[in-house]
This record gives sequence, structure tokens and C-alpha cells, in this order.
Amino acid sequence: MKVKELGEFGLIDRLNKMIADAKVNKASPNLIIGIGDDAAAWQGDNTIQLATVDTMIQGVHFTPDTITWQELGWKSLAINISDIAAMGGLPHYALVALALPEDIDVVNVTELYHGLIEIAKEFKVAIVGGNISRATQVSITITVLGSAPDNKILRRANAKAGDAIAVTGHTGSAAAGLMMLKNKPKLKEADAKYLRNAFLHPIPRITEGRLLIKNGITTAIDTSDGLLADLRHICEESKVSAVVDADRLPIHDAVRANFPDQSVAMALGGGEDYELLFTGQAEVVNKVKKQAACPVTIIGEITKGQAGKIALQGSGIDQTAVKGYGWTHF
Amino acid sequence: MKVKELGEFGLIDRLNKMIADAKVNKASPNLIIGIGDDAAAWQGDNTIQLATVDTMIQGVHFTPDTITWQELGWKSLAINISDIAAMGGLPHYALVALALPEDIDVVNVTELYHGLIEIAKEFKVAIVGGNISRATQVSITITVLGSAPDNKILRRANAKAGDAIAVTGHTGSAAAGLMMLKNKPKLKEADAKYLRNAFLHPIPRITEGRLLIKNGITTAIDTSDGLLADLRHICEESKVSAVVDADRLPIHDAVRANFPDQSVAMALGGGEDYELLFTGQAEVVNKVKKQAACPVTIIGEITKGQAGKIALQGSGIDQTAVKGYGWTHF
Repeated sequence: MKVKELGEFGLIDRLNKMIADAKVNKASPNLIIGIGDDAAAWQGDNTIQLATVDTMIQGVHFTPDTITWQELGWKSLAINISDIAAMGGLPHYALVALALPEDIDVVNVTELYHGLIEIAKEFKVAIVGGNISRATQVSITITVLGSAPDNKILRRANAKAGDAIAVTGHTGSAAAGLMMLKNKPKLKEADAKYLRNAFLHPIPRITEGRLLIKNGITTAIDTSDGLLADLRHICEESKVSAVVDADRLPIHDAVRANFPDQSVAMALGGGEDYELLFTGQAEVVNKVKKQAACPVTIIGEITKGQAGKIALQGSGIDQTAVKGYGWTHF
Repeated sequence: MKVKELGEFGLIDRLNKMIADAKVNKASPNLIIGIGDDAAAWQGDNTIQLATVDTMIQGVHFTPDTITWQELGWKSLAINISDIAAMGGLPHYALVALALPEDIDVVNVTELYHGLIEIAKEFKVAIVGGNISRATQVSITITVLGSAPDNKILRRANAKAGDAIAVTGHTGSAAAGLMMLKNKPKLKEADAKYLRNAFLHPIPRITEGRLLIKNGITTAIDTSDGLLADLRHICEESKVSAVVDADRLPIHDAVRANFPDQSVAMALGGGEDYELLFTGQAEVVNKVKKQAACPVTIIGEITKGQAGKIALQGSGIDQTAVKGYGWTHF
């Protein structure tokens, strides 16, 4: 069987099962979370340690004609810091593995590093190691190590029936940005700038992740695969169902105005927003909402039922279209 | 300028300088070693923490017709554990980022994981995270996190004039193994098996790294680029010169017998042996030699002089050929 027939999540499940069956991780009594959350977590000497890895590949995650090398550097590290944010932690160290065609211009690589350095300084991440290999496609694999200062982390597996489902910021903006970059429609300058940044210059929600921890929230994920796909990860890991009200989705005006027919689909299915999707008692979520510097919107509720099942409500929702939402690699 | 014109080490130097100039790592007071050694090191709550990343790319580091997928899994993790060994540490956690063509057979990927799991169990490494992306070439990027239990590490920068230079095991065996796999000469079965394993199934020198630390050795590197190239890394970082006696190189009988004309060049220039190359006072090195389960051979001496300069002595050594020894990506 080919990998494309098994699918990305099918392959991940199979490899995880091999690791579990072989009891590889039995020799590591300090391990708290292995594969299956935004980051791995283990008990360090005093604080919980976090680690995550993510890859950006030319032709798959980016094409050089729609992203500058500096933006690529920013985004490559941002998506990893976002995984630390989704655990409620702080990022500390990054290792950068580059694969480069031999005829790439050195200026492109130094611009990439300008972007990496820019976000590393902003989030106080030290770039401590790396590796450079020859390859046919540009690929950037970054590992970020962090910690959870209060020894508390946000997991995918803690959602409970009755929890409100909330999301930071706006959803669907990155998908709209990608469509704008592909189709090049003529937009207002402010809209175009917002949408470009939404897709190419995501701001990891580290501050918001810390705020969730401080308020006692225990369940979160970052929206990298798409809102529904990521909510499904929470529901599967927590063995619960969910109801989402599409009319409550925090869709940015720039998305509604320029993509009126696609904005709801973008908000539900579009990936790479790197917002925090979290659950908790409604009164706690409302407390977070008051304290947060960014929008926090309740979009639905966790319910009892089949693990991973999501019901959509709202005006004009086509239930049959929901299944395909979310990005997979194969 | 193209990357291939600047060269691998030129590019690494330029990127490191950017990180240093931007003072990215100033916000990390616990950092002990950033880029420029076998692994990064920082002071954890109680013990020094280590992190390293390495990549294996199809067509660059391996071709599926000369390595089984299981061997590929073993080697991909082994080369990272070897970096932890070269710091004198213990490996604990691994994160695996795979890039796969969509038409690869699932069996190949599960075989790869069999190899990963085999070595992970042997060295008590938990596989705690990962990432799978689509790509045109198979690529495996692994990050390994470890620690230095006694808060002591082996560095490249500690070599002193007068130190003996020693190496564990044999050198040039991996290069001979690669040549055997490429040219397919008819060899004795035992020789063929030894050479195949030398290239495809390296055993990281974790036990030996710990032994070096216990004996007070402070300088080591693993031989991944080639003996002379790696010795040059030590000499550059330590700002010293070295003399190597080619007649003392620990060349395995299987290499001498089957590659009589190339064995010295393989031992000096061939990469991927993943032995420990270290320096220290001769009496300490001789103590290590008595305690080690593997061969330990003194091959030369650290001298005062230009940083990174290596003089070769021995019968039939062609000085002009020395410069080109060692693997670079561009």
C-alpha cells in the first residue's frame, strides 16, 4: 500500500502503534506526553520540558513566488513557537535543519536567517544548533524546546462535555491570504496587507497560552490543520463530541468583504491560522476573554457522544461539505 | 553568489556570524554552547542539557539500493546519538521529522521505524514527537535531547599543545563499506559483513563518551566528516595545530586486505565512522585505553601553531592530497 492510500493520519497512527507496542518509551519514567499533542512534554529536574518539530518544504508548504525568504524564516520558526504556545509554555531554544539546492543564492539563505533572527529575538528564543544538507527542494525543519514554568500544560485530551469551545483572534484569515496570493485579486491596500500577514507572518499566541494556564484552562490546540480538523483532534483525544455554531465564527472583515462566498468554509477548513482553540467552563472562558489583548470568541460546546464527532449548526451550512475540511499531506 | 560557491562551512560561518551580530542568544543566560560543537548545551535546572539535529536525505546521504529501510532507521538515529556521545552525555528523547514522496510504500516507512525503534530501545531513547510532510525526496531529520549527568561535557575547544590525539575503534571502515556497496567487489563473507555494518549500522560511542568524562578528558568530536576534517574542527576551535602519524591509524584488517591502496586515504578522509576523536594528556589517554572495551589508539599530538593546521607524517604520505580530505555538502 502507498502512503497516499493510507493517508497522513493513518500513517501516523500506525507508526505510533509500533512505538507503543515495542514499549520504546517505557525506559523514560519522566515522560508525560509523547506523540499526539502539540508538543512532547516530560518532567525536567524542576519544570516540565517541552519539545516540538515542524517542517516547511518548497512546493508543499510554500512557493518562493508568494513568500519572501525573510517571511519564510519568520514563519518556519513561528509555527514551532505556536506549538509551545498551545501547551501553555515558553519557548527557549531552536535547532534549524536546512536542506538546500546547491544553486540557491546565498542572499536567499541570509534573508531566511534575517526572518528567523527577527522572531527569535521577539520571543527570546536562542538559535543553538543546526544542520545544512544538499537537497533538490528547499526544506526547513525546526525543533523548538521550551518549558512550562508553573508545571502546568494545556493538553488535547482534557476537554469535557459542557465545556465552551473558544478561539483566539480570527479564523480563516490565513486561508484567505493564501487564496489572495494565488489568485491576485485587486484588494484595498489595508485588506491585502492584513491577509498577507495572516498567512505569511503569523504571531504565535505565547501570551495567550500563558493566560489560559493562569486561568486554569487545561485544553488547547493551535489551529494549524484547520479549525474543524484541529477541533476533531481535541474531540478524539478527549473522547467527546462537539457542536460548532458557524454563525459565531470570528471571521475578519477583510475576509468577509473580499471572499463573501468562501469565508465560512475558510474559517472552518482553512489551515495555518495558528490561533489557540481551547475549551473550558464558559465563565472561565469569559474571564480569559476580558483579560486577553486579542479577540476571544466562543464558537460552540463540547458534548457527550462519539469521540471526534462534530455537529455544525448555523445558517446555510452544508453538512456534507464538512467532512473534507482540513489539510492532510497525503 | 551560489551556495555551492560559498561552500558548506562558509555558509555556516556566515549564518553563525549573523546570529552573533544580532545578539539573538543574549536573552538566554543559561546557554553554554550554541552552534559550533557536536551538540548545543545549556544549564538545566540541575544538569546540563544537550540537543542535536541531523538529516539523512535520499540521493545525498543514502540510496535505497544500498541500504535497507531498517538500516536507514537505525543509522538516522545513530548519527544523532553519536553527537550526544561526543559531548560525553546520555541521550533521552528523539523527535523525528519525515519527508516522504506520496507513492512510497507504507512497508518501507514501517521498516524504517523498526530500525528506529531497535536503536531507541538499545540506547533508552524515547521517541516523543515527530512530523510527516510530503516531498519529492525521502528525508529524515531527527533531533535528540540528552543530558550530561555530571555537569561535565566534552568540547571541541579544549585541546592543548602537548595533548595526545586518540580515536576509538577503527577509522576508514565506513568509507570502505560505502565503496564496497558501490563497486560490489567479491569479498570474504566476514569482511563484507563487517564493512556493511561499519557504514550502515554504526554503534554510537555513548559508553566511551562517559568513560572519557570519568577520566577527566575535556576534548572530543565524533568522526562524521572524516578524521582529518574533524580533527581540523578541534584545532580551529581550540586554536592549535596537530601532527598525525598515518602509520599509527587504526585501520581494520578487512579494510587493509580489500583496499590496500586506498586504506590510508579512507582512514584519513572517509566520513561517517562515528568514532570518538579526542585529545588529552598521554597518561590519561592510556588509562582510558585500558578501561575501554573497544580499541583506543593514539594517532598524533596537538601542537602549538596556526589554528587548524594539520601536519601529516608517515610512510608514503602525499601532503598535497591532504587538503581535500573530508566531506562537505556544497
